[in-house]
Amino acid sequence: MSETKTLASYIVSSRLEDIPKDVVHEAKRALLNFVGCAIGGSREPAVDIAIQALRPFSGERTARLLARTERFDPLFASVINGISGHVFEYDDTTPMNYIHPTPPVASALFAFGSANRTNGRDFLHAFLMGFETESRIGNAVYPAHYNAGWHITATAGVFGAAAAISKLLRLSIQQTIWAMGLASTQASGLREMFGSMAKSFHAGHAARNGYLAAILAQAGFTAGESAIESPRGFAAVQASEYDLAKITAGLGEDFQIRYNTYKPYPCGIVVHPTIDGCIDLHRDYHPAPESIRSVHVRVAPLVVDLCNKRDIRQGLDSKYSIYHSAAVGLVRGKAGLHEYSDAAANDPMIKRVRDRVTAISDAAITEDQSDIKVELDNGQVLHRFIECSLGNVRRPLSDQQLEEKFRDQAPNAGRVIDMCWRLDDLQDVNDLVTETLS
Amino acid sequence: MSETKTLASYIVSSRLEDIPKDVVHEAKRALLNFVGCAIGGSREPAVDIAIQALRPFSGERTARLLARTERFDPLFASVINGISGHVFEYDDTTPMNYIHPTPPVASALFAFGSANRTNGRDFLHAFLMGFETESRIGNAVYPAHYNAGWHITATAGVFGAAAAISKLLRLSIQQTIWAMGLASTQASGLREMFGSMAKSFHAGHAARNGYLAAILAQAGFTAGESAIESPRGFAAVQASEYDLAKITAGLGEDFQIRYNTYKPYPCGIVVHPTIDGCIDLHRDYHPAPESIRSVHVRVAPLVVDLCNKRDIRQGLDSKYSIYHSAAVGLVRGKAGLHEYSDAAANDPMIKRVRDRVTAISDAAITEDQSDIKVELDNGQVLHRFIECSLGNVRRPLSDQQLEEKFRDQAPNAGRVIDMCWRLDDLQDVNDLVTETLS
Repeated sequence: MSETKTLASYIVSSRLEDIPKDVVHEAKRALLNFVGCAIGGSREPAVDIAIQALRPFSGERTARLLARTERFDPLFASVINGISGHVFEYDDTTPMNYIHPTPPVASALFAFGSANRTNGRDFLHAFLMGFETESRIGNAVYPAHYNAGWHITATAGVFGAAAAISKLLRLSIQQTIWAMGLASTQASGLREMFGSMAKSFHAGHAARNGYLAAILAQAGFTAGESAIESPRGFAAVQASEYDLAKITAGLGEDFQIRYNTYKPYPCGIVVHPTIDGCIDLHRDYHPAPESIRSVHVRVAPLVVDLCNKRDIRQGLDSKYSIYHSAAVGLVRGKAGLHEYSDAAANDPMIKRVRDRVTAISDAAITEDQSDIKVELDNGQVLHRFIECSLGNVRRPLSDQQLEEKFRDQAPNAGRVIDMCWRLDDLQDVNDLVTETLS
Repeated sequence: MSETKTLASYIVSSRLEDIPKDVVHEAKRALLNFVGCAIGGSREPAVDIAIQALRPFSGERTARLLARTERFDPLFASVINGISGHVFEYDDTTPMNYIHPTPPVASALFAFGSANRTNGRDFLHAFLMGFETESRIGNAVYPAHYNAGWHITATAGVFGAAAAISKLLRLSIQQTIWAMGLASTQASGLREMFGSMAKSFHAGHAARNGYLAAILAQAGFTAGESAIESPRGFAAVQASEYDLAKITAGLGEDFQIRYNTYKPYPCGIVVHPTIDGCIDLHRDYHPAPESIRSVHVRVAPLVVDLCNKRDIRQGLDSKYSIYHSAAVGLVRGKAGLHEYSDAAANDPMIKRVRDRVTAISDAAITEDQSDIKVELDNGQVLHRFIECSLGNVRRPLSDQQLEEKFRDQAPNAGRVIDMCWRLDDLQDVNDLVTETLS
């Protein structure tokens, strides 16, 4: 059986009762983390501008947004939720493929669930179908696809959103296959957009297009039926190398959400080991910023590839800068939302240290590691080697730490935390969406 | 200056007065041909289904559709116009890149012009900006991009729609650059969808996404500013080989619409030489279908690559079949809309001949040529070599033939023909859109 059909059959036949409890709990953790990020990001200029631009085109305003009082039709609500949830770079990451997996799927689901009465169990189940679908498709094409320049959160995400909405719409296998086809032919998003508002748009774009794919398929709009695996399908066209076996191996048993990770710092995950090490050095030595002569960080090549921004003028730029990230760790001993604000980007002390950071790309360093050497004016050299940073799949944030992260972004939304943990008892997911406004 | 910026500057600064008259006339021919196709295609199931599925999500219904009484917001109207205009495979083609150039651009423009008072001169000018943009970007990435499996009508088309709407919105150079960026990051559409409804969706999807890109850019939504040419831009990510010089060489002088062609037959353009030859043989010999023992057509490799469908059950399949196309030419002596209907696909006489056709892929045959040998039961062999078929850029349809093609599809819309020829005098393009309903 083809990969597309195998996935579609699985999505249609899966039952929540058959999914292990730890997997369902991880889904709640992912959703809690996402909702916190969406509340936190919901006041960003990218969200304001998108709402202003898209409002005249909204259909019947049946959907609420996360953490915004404006209403939209559920397709545009998916777009806005995606921008809110992704814009802070604080969302989750699956390190085997660098997808930010929850925003594309959950943005569509919250929009759907706000406009169409949906209970928490169905919602959780659909989320897991979407997560599994995008993760497995991402696994199959990573790393060639990502290295070529595709923003995999967008390109794999559209399949996840299509799978999740297909599940809630109770599509047949045939319809779900068409939905996968319509998702594949909308899969897009370039890494070239990193550092601009278009990056956060990708999560919303994927959510909306996946949702649209499911709606069209439901109505009988046909599409190619081997969209993922055929010689002209998604994998072959968008990746020079790929492994289709990863789509189906262990399907329904080896749940990919078990490998999900949550960021303690609101910036590209690849710089997290460096931040951890710099925070450690700050805590242990309290070096005066003025005394720092040079900082050398030895990191995996991908880190420099992704986070090489030197010309930092605003908070958004700083999220893609290994230099800024090392500097805030050393100067402030933390790397929260305030350390990636416009104010921090222009803080003279942070700038002073940032300008003294050199990043060395070293293939012997893994993406979990970082080797940091700080030389002071008095000749003293501070050194730290990080094997694996907080938030890594081997050092996961606890439920408690996830709640703290949520509260940092959404101090008034305490009831939402409780609703996320109790999702399987929720009669109507719209109650949770409404609560994000408080 | 970067290619993206050069294009954006050209779009912003271009004046219709500076564009040669023959180019403006060719724009009218392209639009006339497109509107005829859209009227002809507007009753297809793909259009009905899309209207039914999307209607609940439409925003304020300020736009009319081409040849349909339903109303939509202009973004969804762009989608529906694109499906109508492309679904018959009767639209225009630029043979240097195999783009169907008018549907993505004109679908967005007619939606815009229907919802926002737009005069014919501005409309024609914006259309030419869109045409030029998508053609040049397509030229730069063709053939590697197309050969990889991208449906270039969709992927280049989104840039064309973005350019055209940017022009009508009078965006600045900076905004137009963002619109190009937002277009690039939505560029998608797989050839894998050929033969399904999703193919015609591509034209509408490109139109809508390009329109959306312009709206977001107008509001200040930022995007990567070297979206086409950077190492992670559209060209590098979506084509293994490309030539950026083709984007800017002769810009504003060598207008790409001069190379546009219009199909006399509603099917893949690469089978047209074979159809021409088979119609010739029918006219000259009137072979009885029952007497045809075998048909051998020797064609360029791309023909077999694109039109190798053997299992023909419905009209849509038959458009991608060199076998069916040869058979209708021989059996009926014509290849109009009726020859690609469900009835023709299941006509026993056509099926009989179709099953006797063999296509030989021969790199010595150009895409303009076809070599046809028909063997009859009595041993007689009929032969025809076609150097270049009707509709080819070297044998273009006359204005008169374009009008005849229009009337075949839209017998009641004669006034629209006149309005297309008088587009530069039209005060409001919505009058033309309204007239397509008659």
